[in-house]
Amino acid sequence: MTKKVLVVGGVAGGASVAARVRRLDESAEVIMFEKGPHVSFSNCSLPYHLSGIVEESEKLVLMSPEIFKDRYNIEARVHQEVMQINREKKTITVKDLMTNETYEESYDKLVLSPGASPIRPNLEGINNSNVFTVRNVVDIENIQSYIMQKDMKDIAVIGGGFIGVEVAENLKLADYNVTLVEFANQVMAPFDYDMAQILHKEMTDHGVELVLDDGLAKIADGFVTTNSGKNIDAQAVILAIGVRPETSLASDAGLEIGETGAIKVDHHYLTSDKDIYAVGDAIEVYHRLLRKPTRLALAGPAQKQARAAADHMYGIPNKNIGVIGSSSIHLFDVNAASTGLNARTAQQAGINHDYVYLMPGDKVGLMPNSNPMHFKLIFEYPTGRILGAQAIGKGNVDKRIDVIATMITMNGTLEDLKDLELSYSPMLGTAKDVVNHAALVGRNLLQGRYKEVKVSQVRELVESNAFIIDAREENEYHAGHFIHAVNIPLSQFRQRLDEIPKDQAVYIHCRSGQRSYNMVMALQNLGYENVYNISGSYLGVNLYEYFNDLVTGRDKIVTEYNFK
Amino acid sequence: MTKKVLVVGGVAGGASVAARVRRLDESAEVIMFEKGPHVSFSNCSLPYHLSGIVEESEKLVLMSPEIFKDRYNIEARVHQEVMQINREKKTITVKDLMTNETYEESYDKLVLSPGASPIRPNLEGINNSNVFTVRNVVDIENIQSYIMQKDMKDIAVIGGGFIGVEVAENLKLADYNVTLVEFANQVMAPFDYDMAQILHKEMTDHGVELVLDDGLAKIADGFVTTNSGKNIDAQAVILAIGVRPETSLASDAGLEIGETGAIKVDHHYLTSDKDIYAVGDAIEVYHRLLRKPTRLALAGPAQKQARAAADHMYGIPNKNIGVIGSSSIHLFDVNAASTGLNARTAQQAGINHDYVYLMPGDKVGLMPNSNPMHFKLIFEYPTGRILGAQAIGKGNVDKRIDVIATMITMNGTLEDLKDLELSYSPMLGTAKDVVNHAALVGRNLLQGRYKEVKVSQVRELVESNAFIIDAREENEYHAGHFIHAVNIPLSQFRQRLDEIPKDQAVYIHCRSGQRSYNMVMALQNLGYENVYNISGSYLGVNLYEYFNDLVTGRDKIVTEYNFK
Repeated sequence: MTKKVLVVGGVAGGASVAARVRRLDESAEVIMFEKGPHVSFSNCSLPYHLSGIVEESEKLVLMSPEIFKDRYNIEARVHQEVMQINREKKTITVKDLMTNETYEESYDKLVLSPGASPIRPNLEGINNSNVFTVRNVVDIENIQSYIMQKDMKDIAVIGGGFIGVEVAENLKLADYNVTLVEFANQVMAPFDYDMAQILHKEMTDHGVELVLDDGLAKIADGFVTTNSGKNIDAQAVILAIGVRPETSLASDAGLEIGETGAIKVDHHYLTSDKDIYAVGDAIEVYHRLLRKPTRLALAGPAQKQARAAADHMYGIPNKNIGVIGSSSIHLFDVNAASTGLNARTAQQAGINHDYVYLMPGDKVGLMPNSNPMHFKLIFEYPTGRILGAQAIGKGNVDKRIDVIATMITMNGTLEDLKDLELSYSPMLGTAKDVVNHAALVGRNLLQGRYKEVKVSQVRELVESNAFIIDAREENEYHAGHFIHAVNIPLSQFRQRLDEIPKDQAVYIHCRSGQRSYNMVMALQNLGYENVYNISGSYLGVNLYEYFNDLVTGRDKIVTEYNFK
Repeated sequence: MTKKVLVVGGVAGGASVAARVRRLDESAEVIMFEKGPHVSFSNCSLPYHLSGIVEESEKLVLMSPEIFKDRYNIEARVHQEVMQINREKKTITVKDLMTNETYEESYDKLVLSPGASPIRPNLEGINNSNVFTVRNVVDIENIQSYIMQKDMKDIAVIGGGFIGVEVAENLKLADYNVTLVEFANQVMAPFDYDMAQILHKEMTDHGVELVLDDGLAKIADGFVTTNSGKNIDAQAVILAIGVRPETSLASDAGLEIGETGAIKVDHHYLTSDKDIYAVGDAIEVYHRLLRKPTRLALAGPAQKQARAAADHMYGIPNKNIGVIGSSSIHLFDVNAASTGLNARTAQQAGINHDYVYLMPGDKVGLMPNSNPMHFKLIFEYPTGRILGAQAIGKGNVDKRIDVIATMITMNGTLEDLKDLELSYSPMLGTAKDVVNHAALVGRNLLQGRYKEVKVSQVRELVESNAFIIDAREENEYHAGHFIHAVNIPLSQFRQRLDEIPKDQAVYIHCRSGQRSYNMVMALQNLGYENVYNISGSYLGVNLYEYFNDLVTGRDKIVTEYNFK
């Protein structure tokens, strides 16, 4: 018997499930319904039209209804809004947006892939014609044609998630004055506060104005006002404060909605109706590290869900291992990627953890384009199980994050990570890859072989006049150093032990942490019981604008350190 | 009691073990002996001095004896050759190469890290002054100063391993006429023959003359002669046909030598003497996939061995999980990386295996610098256990290989690999990463969901006049196609089923394998029992020079396909 499969939504998840059904069943009748004019466009590439990196917006559309028909015998109906699911009759009610006529279509299996819609808060001016959101190709074309007006100069982007940051970057590349307003104290929630400083610096270095810890209060003619009362010039406003899963179709039909407000699905991505699947940004998924439902609006997981749902219709077993949340972003001159939990989410979840923060070179130092990479590894205490990582730098930082994502999925520990045998060539990396290195440092912490304090504790140390040793050479120290820090270079400390007190805590840093680590180990060996490495060292601390007052002669180092 | 640790060899393994001992034991006396003038130089970066990528050869030297002394309190004695180990007395006999005097030095623990020396075959002209090998900074300086002569035009590089290929590349970048002679039918043994074709093409496209299946017979004035009688102009010859572990010190002392001809060590990198460790290129290691001893001259493993040896001296437990062999190379405009077994080594070891060959884009197609990537995944049959992978392309292919290396180490299967949740942004990758994609295809093969033939079988198919369907669109077909292939585009085949025979085998290809896969699945569904996808498809096959005669109108496709 011919199976009739209807799919609501023709992007990422929807198009994938339709194509997979066709591969499994040449005889199935497959119809996709899409409210907009396009099926199968590259959501993730939308912001790149604003800078011209993707010059023609038509290129964002990957497949036409004609190709779906010709190649896959899939009927893709655009401008069709699915209004209602009639579960007892096993039909859906569809409205043709071109003719405003409605009709019913029956199904054997129904797949919901309606996605998520940008949140529009209810505030003054929100419906002005210069206020935009970014969801599809039409949206991005509308923004582009609006801002091409000749008097357009200043644009406000509201929200510092992936879309907000990428939109801000691409508008800046197109030479607008861009201000990004973010409610939290940092952009890009997958990153911890310390790592986010690097992203902030990258954005401000490239001329994006950042307004953090502040929200949009109202939109007026030519400017927006923030909660704190700041007025920001803006002839156009892009809203990117988050998305809300499209659940009305499902909830109107009595399908169960989960605790996160998204459609609830089982192991096979079946909703509470055994003939209705749901995939993509509209559903809630299971976080395998947090052990609870979550929402994750990413393309990769959507494709996997789509395949699993189609397979289940045809009795093909699948695994559902939950999600860990891996993502990356290219931002001006740096790449940034993260996976699993960050220290903040681990803390919030009450998971006993510790972390390592390293800044090695991304390739052998004497090779062209060798640049520092910032790497943070979070692990469970006392098991050493890998929980997550974040990496930022000019090179291929996402490679290191993917290795960590693999380790998390395979339940790896620091012990496993230190032994990984990774590919190396001096043009592409270092013999001891940062992931190996981080595992070794983490193992030292786990086993109590040495102690460290985190970057975030430096202010307290300096202000309380703690005994801080700067283990760099004298010329480095004189170019800029912490106030009160004592300069005892690694190359001299064995002759100057009498300057290092045994009866109080000693905190040591150098440039990147390597030399101070060696000094910490030596002092411990010599009977010092209270010696700490300052994690992140001088490079890490220097990224914090708010440490400015703790450092003298700072400029030179910051310049050296620039990613440019 | 103060421990006295002597280390023979001051590069990679030697320097690492010395530094680790110091961190574990501030009171230990640590002396490194190095025959040459430099300790701790970057071996892997040596070839890059020939092109000027590393302009000053001094930069290749990472640490001076003075820094070892000042920072780590390690005595690094250069120009000192260790002549003999006196195991009963626990001393070594050392010759000072500057004074020619010998002396003895006692040890509590001795670490051998003598490395491996370039093989010099015994043939006519081998001792000429224009014949060089590449082992250390002095070697590379000698080559550089010799070839700077104004009449130097042609250089022959003998051997197509890492060093030979990198030397050839860097000499070519410096504008010499370079011929590379390799005894095997391909360069770079970690890659399978099919993948090596891409490296051959990259080298010849950049003007390196390749002479394969041939060896060096003799060296004459201004040219070399190969085994096949070919004369190759060469005013200088670089020998890079392999290395031999430096075992004479160990074997003279009666230490056990392993079946591979390298120093035999136990789990802790102890030799057959409980006070003598050995690490680095001179030892044999255990291959965890082949389950037998092997040699692996790579920097990363040497560092891990060094740390493990030092830790063992101080009772710190370590794991020894064996090696899998991961490596990468940057070659002109492409990067190439591999890990684990290739199909050839799996075959030789009698391991039942299959593989997947894919050519996806390395990032979203509409993004700048999107390029094809060649990816080959080898897995065990019928378990689906991951055995190895190779990747070549302009982008960060090593990232994908490191994910596979992680999976191998964690005993992952195709089932695990397909579910990996990796980071994605359109500027950096694709939503379905190639490793996920390859796992899905591999799983289809493993479960018998569809069948394929390999690129290497195409000649036989074409010559036997098999029924080959070219599933590309008509314009693609007309630009170049296999002789005898029938053009039935995926977009038309449902209307042209009567042209596809049910009573004989049908082989389908398209450009990259995606469209043909869909047609194979559809035909199977329609009751065709003998349908095969041609793995590697038209792009893969086109890399083989020796398929030239099987294709018409080939030029256009090859040009399109170029990595340039």
